[in-house]
Amino acid sequence: MGDSIAALEKPLSEIETDFQAFEIPTQPRFVSDYTDEIMQNLVAHSVHTAAPSFIGHMTSALPYFVLPLSKMMVGLNQNLVKIETSKAFTPLERQVLGMMHHLIYDQDTDFYQSWMHSANHSLGAFCSGGTVANITALWIARNQLLKADGEFKGVSREGSLKALRHYGYDDLAILVSERGHYSLGKAVDLLGIGRDNIISIPTDNNNKVDVAKMRQAALELARKNIKVLAIVGVAGTTETGNVDPLTELAALAKELNCHFHVDAAWGGASLLSNKYRHLLAGIELADSVTIDAHKQMYVPMGAGMVLFKDPEFAHAIAHHAEYILRRGSKDLGSQTLEGSRPGMAMLVHACLQIIGRDGYEILINNSLEKARYFAEQIKAHEDFELVTEPELCLLTYRYVPARVQAAMQLACEQVDTVKLARFNELLDGLTQFIQKHQREQGKSFVSRTRIQPARYFRQATVVFRVVLANPLTSHDILNQVLVEQSEIAALDNEFLPALMAMIALK
Amino acid sequence: MGDSIAALEKPLSEIETDFQAFEIPTQPRFVSDYTDEIMQNLVAHSVHTAAPSFIGHMTSALPYFVLPLSKMMVGLNQNLVKIETSKAFTPLERQVLGMMHHLIYDQDTDFYQSWMHSANHSLGAFCSGGTVANITALWIARNQLLKADGEFKGVSREGSLKALRHYGYDDLAILVSERGHYSLGKAVDLLGIGRDNIISIPTDNNNKVDVAKMRQAALELARKNIKVLAIVGVAGTTETGNVDPLTELAALAKELNCHFHVDAAWGGASLLSNKYRHLLAGIELADSVTIDAHKQMYVPMGAGMVLFKDPEFAHAIAHHAEYILRRGSKDLGSQTLEGSRPGMAMLVHACLQIIGRDGYEILINNSLEKARYFAEQIKAHEDFELVTEPELCLLTYRYVPARVQAAMQLACEQVDTVKLARFNELLDGLTQFIQKHQREQGKSFVSRTRIQPARYFRQATVVFRVVLANPLTSHDILNQVLVEQSEIAALDNEFLPALMAMIALK
Repeated sequence: MGDSIAALEKPLSEIETDFQAFEIPTQPRFVSDYTDEIMQNLVAHSVHTAAPSFIGHMTSALPYFVLPLSKMMVGLNQNLVKIETSKAFTPLERQVLGMMHHLIYDQDTDFYQSWMHSANHSLGAFCSGGTVANITALWIARNQLLKADGEFKGVSREGSLKALRHYGYDDLAILVSERGHYSLGKAVDLLGIGRDNIISIPTDNNNKVDVAKMRQAALELARKNIKVLAIVGVAGTTETGNVDPLTELAALAKELNCHFHVDAAWGGASLLSNKYRHLLAGIELADSVTIDAHKQMYVPMGAGMVLFKDPEFAHAIAHHAEYILRRGSKDLGSQTLEGSRPGMAMLVHACLQIIGRDGYEILINNSLEKARYFAEQIKAHEDFELVTEPELCLLTYRYVPARVQAAMQLACEQVDTVKLARFNELLDGLTQFIQKHQREQGKSFVSRTRIQPARYFRQATVVFRVVLANPLTSHDILNQVLVEQSEIAALDNEFLPALMAMIALK
Repeated sequence: MGDSIAALEKPLSEIETDFQAFEIPTQPRFVSDYTDEIMQNLVAHSVHTAAPSFIGHMTSALPYFVLPLSKMMVGLNQNLVKIETSKAFTPLERQVLGMMHHLIYDQDTDFYQSWMHSANHSLGAFCSGGTVANITALWIARNQLLKADGEFKGVSREGSLKALRHYGYDDLAILVSERGHYSLGKAVDLLGIGRDNIISIPTDNNNKVDVAKMRQAALELARKNIKVLAIVGVAGTTETGNVDPLTELAALAKELNCHFHVDAAWGGASLLSNKYRHLLAGIELADSVTIDAHKQMYVPMGAGMVLFKDPEFAHAIAHHAEYILRRGSKDLGSQTLEGSRPGMAMLVHACLQIIGRDGYEILINNSLEKARYFAEQIKAHEDFELVTEPELCLLTYRYVPARVQAAMQLACEQVDTVKLARFNELLDGLTQFIQKHQREQGKSFVSRTRIQPARYFRQATVVFRVVLANPLTSHDILNQVLVEQSEIAALDNEFLPALMAMIALK
């Protein structure tokens, strides 16, 4: 496939024709025949996520050594739910959680010697991904808030209705930035809290949550007798890559006496950079933190983690069964959402050891600095607009011809939101046109999303979204992405002419 | 490691000494050094789950071809949450779900042509394992039951409290056999239903749920204004391998107008045997079915599935986000509990194609027949007692010296439950002694659990538990397991002498 993002562009509907059979075939097949077939109809039409020009999503390139190790991991087929089917993989996973805990919370030797391998404690939970990690954190927080009390046996046993009645709350709520990840919506849906009880707090001009507005929202909830279960800080928003003011959020959580969770699924890896970890200052005040190793830690898909400040935190979801997870055992399954799980922690362990802090320092710094370089190129180019500055290694921008930029600048000054909306509508079409064509050309890939930039009075605006984590993405490739996008823009005969007509009208 | 279950037995506390470091190392390491180290401290102390004498758990041996394919799958690092990061893997996963749906529900060509690749439909959800599959099914069922209605926006948006109030229920409940898997407890805990609202229904002498008692329980709940959300049928209990009367349960679910879920995480693979699939008759009446491919389908850990009879079922949890999962897209992530996920479906696809129905027919029949052979050997041996007959390929038994069996038979006839309890208590100690020693000797491994056999008036009884799925497990190996257990029993100088003394007293 070389460096292109796909061997050849083929519409999904055509690809689907190779996957129409719905009956399991009767006859066994030769492995070689099967392999030949999937090389053509599957592998050739997979996405080259490791291509240096694939800069649209958080799925990272992998170091070569993880491939033979993953084959070994799969072959060993350990099941981490319990010691009997994992043996040494259990202490290994506990060590990985310990190392990630230390990266965040930096406790002393005594702490880790006491709790890292303790049967009745856990420094975190390993899971398939950030969604399960976030759900786990909020599940435990809910169970701790609505715990057993006198005659009441706890929400875990009696359910939400009786729990809220017992504690006298009319409802629970979770406070999070409007940029919070959609997995939080799933979490409150699952937990019976309800999606309307995720209180979406506006962000400032830098896409960071406005803590004053969050405090105000909390007061309003209190007046309505709705208890704030948790504040969630976002450490690396999915769409703009910004980090919430974590220290202030921690202080607010303390005031409200609620759980403080930080969703650092993507941004957490930046803690591995001594130079830039200050960008996540305050994360050590969180009660729980989600980090995905399969995002910026260069581990294959399927390696999520949630870390707990308090080694007793997970007690609120501890469960036992007769044939498994007996009390006092070190079986990891007694304090996780998932049951049977593979030994993915081994690949995180391998990356931490083989790449090391010094290696990650280079990788992370490189990504962040490349994002700053790209931002400068975008700003220097008269026909592009940088929409959000890179705080970590994610930025958004769009193609806006210089003359349109000037006209929009004027409209902004005149607060002519009607005109701005017309510009933005046409620009949205143009951005989508460019993004789709670029993907279809198969040379490079940026993603797109819709955000509400402060400068445009929060009008919804479609932007290109770039995540720079692949160490092989060169400055040349980034420059080429802009050249390609300018060329594609020139092919558009719908939105661009309309934009030019608008300017001419004026 | 040869055929032993572990290279050498080393206490966990000693293994843990190799996993004490809690700081991520500073310096990068050579891959070869790291690999050498983990070969000694990890791989050598992992569990040889593929050993033919490892017959204690459901973790299966793997066909060799899955190893290179898994390396390819990991290397491609696709993210199935959306098309942009998975392309052909998305239709492949939909095909796998279609094939498994067809295996259960056997719908016609039109059905699969209409729904298998339809953007707004799903025949199931692929996930990390059976626990997430069961949670997904019950989550959807809850959201469907407590759906939007007039002013009420649905439990998904407003939460449990308002949902129950709106519909006028005092609580929800789930009815399941006392042998139901512990993941159902996690599911109701998470969903805010509460563990006490899993109504555990007694089983008959064959560990199958008593449907009459379930109906009675449902009537009592109705009197208390508690709505039955779902009936869960178990198709292959984890501890005894029995299948609930699924057809009768389906009829009861219809009477109660509730969801009917079948947890066939382990037993579902038996549908691949034309000879034995009648053992799961009625499964096609289920609204949803959980099957783990990493159990008896010979796929590596991490391949769970839940299948939906109705292609619109998952609408109740559909969610969308701006940068991903746009409405009308074929992104799989809009109808799953998990977010980012690896391309594990490829390994299921490979096994279905390469092994084929004919191959699975041999593998499954072989396992079931081997279990019947082993049961005969246990019954024929005067010092062993078969506690539960194999219905699929799982059985339980224990070592009970012939003279003790005779004395217990008498106690049973005299309904001398006090004496029986004393026997059972000593036998429990002996069973645990044998099981632990056998595991430590490292030649073979059976697991143990605690069940309540009808013949002992439901007294809790510790038993050996054997799952026969590895095609390389020979009759010789099974016979040898009994020889080894008899030899270990003779080493016990606590429980066996006490049992003999009890008999002498009489």
